[in-house]
Amino acid sequence: MTVETWWQAPTAEISESIRQQALERQLQLTKPPGSLGELEQVAVAFAAWQGQVKAEIRQPACVVFAGDHGVVAQGVSAFPQAVTVEMLKNFVAGGAAISVLARHHDMQLAVVNCGTAIPCDELEGVIQRVVMPGTRDFSQQAAMNEAQMLAALRVGAEQLERLHGEGCDLFIAGEMGIGNTSAASCLSALLLAQDVNALTGPGTGMAGQALSHKQQVLAASVERARPLVTTPLEALQQVGGLEVAAMTGAYLRAAQLGIPVLVDGFIATSAALLAVRLNPAVRDWMLFGHQSAEPGHRALLEVLNARPLVQLGMRLGEGSGAGVALAIIREALALHNGMATFAEAAISSAD
Amino acid sequence: MTVETWWQAPTAEISESIRQQALERQLQLTKPPGSLGELEQVAVAFAAWQGQVKAEIRQPACVVFAGDHGVVAQGVSAFPQAVTVEMLKNFVAGGAAISVLARHHDMQLAVVNCGTAIPCDELEGVIQRVVMPGTRDFSQQAAMNEAQMLAALRVGAEQLERLHGEGCDLFIAGEMGIGNTSAASCLSALLLAQDVNALTGPGTGMAGQALSHKQQVLAASVERARPLVTTPLEALQQVGGLEVAAMTGAYLRAAQLGIPVLVDGFIATSAALLAVRLNPAVRDWMLFGHQSAEPGHRALLEVLNARPLVQLGMRLGEGSGAGVALAIIREALALHNGMATFAEAAISSAD
Repeated sequence: MTVETWWQAPTAEISESIRQQALERQLQLTKPPGSLGELEQVAVAFAAWQGQVKAEIRQPACVVFAGDHGVVAQGVSAFPQAVTVEMLKNFVAGGAAISVLARHHDMQLAVVNCGTAIPCDELEGVIQRVVMPGTRDFSQQAAMNEAQMLAALRVGAEQLERLHGEGCDLFIAGEMGIGNTSAASCLSALLLAQDVNALTGPGTGMAGQALSHKQQVLAASVERARPLVTTPLEALQQVGGLEVAAMTGAYLRAAQLGIPVLVDGFIATSAALLAVRLNPAVRDWMLFGHQSAEPGHRALLEVLNARPLVQLGMRLGEGSGAGVALAIIREALALHNGMATFAEAAISSAD
Repeated sequence: MTVETWWQAPTAEISESIRQQALERQLQLTKPPGSLGELEQVAVAFAAWQGQVKAEIRQPACVVFAGDHGVVAQGVSAFPQAVTVEMLKNFVAGGAAISVLARHHDMQLAVVNCGTAIPCDELEGVIQRVVMPGTRDFSQQAAMNEAQMLAALRVGAEQLERLHGEGCDLFIAGEMGIGNTSAASCLSALLLAQDVNALTGPGTGMAGQALSHKQQVLAASVERARPLVTTPLEALQQVGGLEVAAMTGAYLRAAQLGIPVLVDGFIATSAALLAVRLNPAVRDWMLFGHQSAEPGHRALLEVLNARPLVQLGMRLGEGSGAGVALAIIREALALHNGMATFAEAAISSAD
């Protein structure tokens, strides 16, 4: 296997016999069949992934990948680029949304700098894996060269290798990068062969004239890139981000190592689609956490045939939507594992 | 105040100044404004209810009210009536879905027998408040007389008085009663002045011919009752259930005592609408847990201008949908209370 094609290696096997046993258990629990809705499917999926009828999540982990985006020079974000590093500081200090959710759920949180524009070597607790100091302005040129893209994919894969060694049993990828909804919009437009404007929303706070300017910049970027793109990786290289590439690599490696993935919002789902395009079996290791308020998210979820667990109008990133959905998964497993069967409770069955 | 009109007493006051302070805090947290979607509104609502900017839920409680329904003689349920008492046993033994969720969330669970067809006096842990041994068959006559209905309302109110004394800070009403989706459908049809068939679903497992028979029985029941009904309480008396009346009384008393209510699914929401019709200010103390798969639920939620926190295709009752949604509320409060402000984290603001 060459270094360029590690992502094509097979994903971990999923136990169909345990899936059947978990489905049978669901039918025996003291409730009408199907009455716990999607919670039943979640519990059955984890049973099959873990190879045990009563699955448990003991070591969930979230890795936030950060990177900056050259395209912000075109005025596509409401926040200055300095915020990327300021937020890394906030993540490790415990003040960000994902930090709070990690504490709330006793979830490991790691922060990986894939390439901020402003160096932050001194920031204790941040894993430094800088591929380049932010991507190039993709409205003018490719965001990354091939070597940089491959390195960023490996940054994500490497984190999953670490987590696998530590016993992680659920993986959430988060992201931070001013301008990264722009990258996700352009990437989605290329992967889905759709108009980028139909996929472009306010991100973290554009409206009115600023939003229409963002849409013009992104339309021009996609127009520039489209003739150069014939593969998913070429799309990533042209208009992606370092953190998007790292998330893609993380998802691919998670599926290979048999760690279920809980996908976050729009940017995470663009990486998820990329991962599935590179290795379709990766889809079988994915659950989707939340439906983002970003319009492009719906289009990505449809292509992935995915229904997220919660719809709360969130649009924050960081892995926060998936972090919220983790609570639902834990409830699904508690119900599946803890409820009595009809036989145990001596309950009469339906007519 | 006469015993008949206790429910018209004013509801507890809600602090508008604390609501404003909580809204301001949300704007200062390290995230784009509004990016936590409905989680922000949930946290602000609890702040206003508790009168403190950082609200907490320390003592959530669920009371499951049980009652039987004479209309099951017409073959409107897939399960035999014996299941009502069998499930009460399961609730107190810890094997039911709501029992598991109560353990999972460290939530108090109480089970109140408002009137099962089969006595269960020997069942340890069940609070016995039997008004009558199940309602009469409402396809033929009023489900209850006025005194029975008033007594059932008080059964619910009394539970809230107990919980208030114990320091309860979030209330969930659950229900158990074979046939009670039929009662909720007829009650909704009368309260909403809609066709009962548009509101009638499979309940816990009717399909095909059995479902169309259920629909015929319910249409005839509503036709019988409609000329006799001019007030919400007359609707309850004609086609309601003992547990539905108890839930109604519970919601009314919760709002009077200043305990926020997390409403469960279709049957609970029919009681919630009844409570709001009896005392409109009760609505201000309600959050809605989940969107049930039952078609009538959507119509009730619309009239109540309510958007439930989760949509997971559940249709179990017992308070289970609200029990699942409790996790989302706890996350909303953790984020609101635990995140850093822009000033605390020294983050640059938007352009």
